[in-house]
Amino acid sequence: MSGGPLDVVGIGNAIVDVLSHADDEFLVREGLVKGSMALIDTVRAEALYDSMGPAIEVSGGSAANTVAGLAGFGGRAGFVGRVRDDQLGAVFAHDLRALGVEFDVAPATEGPPTGRCLILVTPDAQRTLNTYLGAGAALGPDDVDEAQVACAQITYLEGYLWDPPAAKEAFRKASAVAHASGRKIAFSLSDSFCVGRWREEFVHLAEHEIDVLFANEDEIRSLYQANSFDDALRHVRGHCETAALTRSEKGSVIVSGDEIHVIDPEPVASVVDTTGAGDLYAAGFLFGLARGLDLFTCGRLGSIAASEVISHMGARPEISLAELAKRKLGEIA
Amino acid sequence: MSGGPLDVVGIGNAIVDVLSHADDEFLVREGLVKGSMALIDTVRAEALYDSMGPAIEVSGGSAANTVAGLAGFGGRAGFVGRVRDDQLGAVFAHDLRALGVEFDVAPATEGPPTGRCLILVTPDAQRTLNTYLGAGAALGPDDVDEAQVACAQITYLEGYLWDPPAAKEAFRKASAVAHASGRKIAFSLSDSFCVGRWREEFVHLAEHEIDVLFANEDEIRSLYQANSFDDALRHVRGHCETAALTRSEKGSVIVSGDEIHVIDPEPVASVVDTTGAGDLYAAGFLFGLARGLDLFTCGRLGSIAASEVISHMGARPEISLAELAKRKLGEIA
Repeated sequence: MSGGPLDVVGIGNAIVDVLSHADDEFLVREGLVKGSMALIDTVRAEALYDSMGPAIEVSGGSAANTVAGLAGFGGRAGFVGRVRDDQLGAVFAHDLRALGVEFDVAPATEGPPTGRCLILVTPDAQRTLNTYLGAGAALGPDDVDEAQVACAQITYLEGYLWDPPAAKEAFRKASAVAHASGRKIAFSLSDSFCVGRWREEFVHLAEHEIDVLFANEDEIRSLYQANSFDDALRHVRGHCETAALTRSEKGSVIVSGDEIHVIDPEPVASVVDTTGAGDLYAAGFLFGLARGLDLFTCGRLGSIAASEVISHMGARPEISLAELAKRKLGEIA
Repeated sequence: MSGGPLDVVGIGNAIVDVLSHADDEFLVREGLVKGSMALIDTVRAEALYDSMGPAIEVSGGSAANTVAGLAGFGGRAGFVGRVRDDQLGAVFAHDLRALGVEFDVAPATEGPPTGRCLILVTPDAQRTLNTYLGAGAALGPDDVDEAQVACAQITYLEGYLWDPPAAKEAFRKASAVAHASGRKIAFSLSDSFCVGRWREEFVHLAEHEIDVLFANEDEIRSLYQANSFDDALRHVRGHCETAALTRSEKGSVIVSGDEIHVIDPEPVASVVDTTGAGDLYAAGFLFGLARGLDLFTCGRLGSIAASEVISHMGARPEISLAELAKRKLGEIA
């Protein structure tokens, strides 16, 4: 641990996003399922990149986007994930550190290159993700700093961690340390296909390990194989301490014991790219939670952060979220 | 030469742009002159990157942006410039080829990494460039394919080529081949400081070698050390076959022998980042010229392309310029 105690430490796959516009025909031709995340290997990553249009590169990774957003609110954040000592690894580390996020995992000096996510943004602003985990796949329990987790208010982990082999051990270590220190574990279901791959384990986690669960409508319905959002809500209520459920243009719903909040989305002039919407919602919510704010305000902060990130390409905020929140809510924390 | 004859072949520094927001105080603190381009070495590049905020990476390079824009209009374009066999080099090559631009220079397997330009975008949408030439500095006459230049309607070169040592020999070779084949040479003055470094040579080039000169107001005034735009106009008129002079929100002026056109800028809802405005003006202008359109229409195409690129971060168009031009002007070529 290099600094003082953190509001949130995020653990996830270190990824640089490669964003390109594409039409629906491109997705069909490449066999891609719109709105989903697919894991791809080196050969597929190269072939898909070759067929993609020109792109921009922006640091990404679900939990990394969340801690970047948290820092944008003025929160103290750290990140745990693995890059290589290559140009994209340097970009990833720079972008986190430039925001003041603690990122102390040394880059690998051999093995696969820094992970990347080939993202196709369709004209409806939906994003279709193709993730090559690269160096990120080596993440394991040794990367988790016990002192950092023990001192952080909240440790936040992405569901995508269930895909690389050793990362769930990192989750288990972090969860044990956090709970032994009276801290909270937050978790994102990440993607409905990811939920499909790990449903039983995720249901068990929600019930027994997770203090704050983030999911969008597709993910929470997939988790409980529910026919409707309302049905999923009924399942999660009482089976997870706090759940924050995002519903795109319908806003979000927060349940925590008997408490429930139905929160409107923030208005957005033009939705350009929904990449990072869920990650940034989590950023605002967790910032509020770490600062002891009520759940309604936590949800509003989440909505405000999400509204900023969907108004441009890329999954990291382009303006100060602290100032944006102040403009919308007044002084908050 | 790998394909058929080209509308335009661009020769320039192969650069990946690293774009970040910064305030005016940051520029002062780092000793940067707003709106200018400074050449930086490895040590300075690393120090400046460390002090910059989070960034996005987008392929850039002045002449490369121009041929990318030309391809966006449906033109046949090629590019000559040097990258290394690293991740940023792969990004640069991908982004050009994905647009259909011919790019056949093999990446260097040793030596400095792919060049990059650290760009600070201030709240007034001005950009301040800090260029690390890297592998691009090795560009020389051997990289110029005589057959490609002899067959291209126009060979376009950036003034920045005067900075690396061997690149002006590439210019001289290209100019000799093009003129021997009855083709045109177009040239951009690039930057007023670049003009300051090479004024005498550039004045000579304008008079004797260049068929189409691109310059913004600062650059053309610097070239002739003129007190006013009108004074600069008087100097260039009759001393260069055709000059296209861009004036930001004041539009552009084209002079060619006795002919003169004063062209309004295209309206832009919100100017986000002026990086690439001049490069894209050149793209539209050269596309029109290669297709035999009148100079007024060439200028309008330039304005249309510039208006697109200043409405978002980065120096490459994000939408089809062919469709944009069709919407604004009807079928043109």
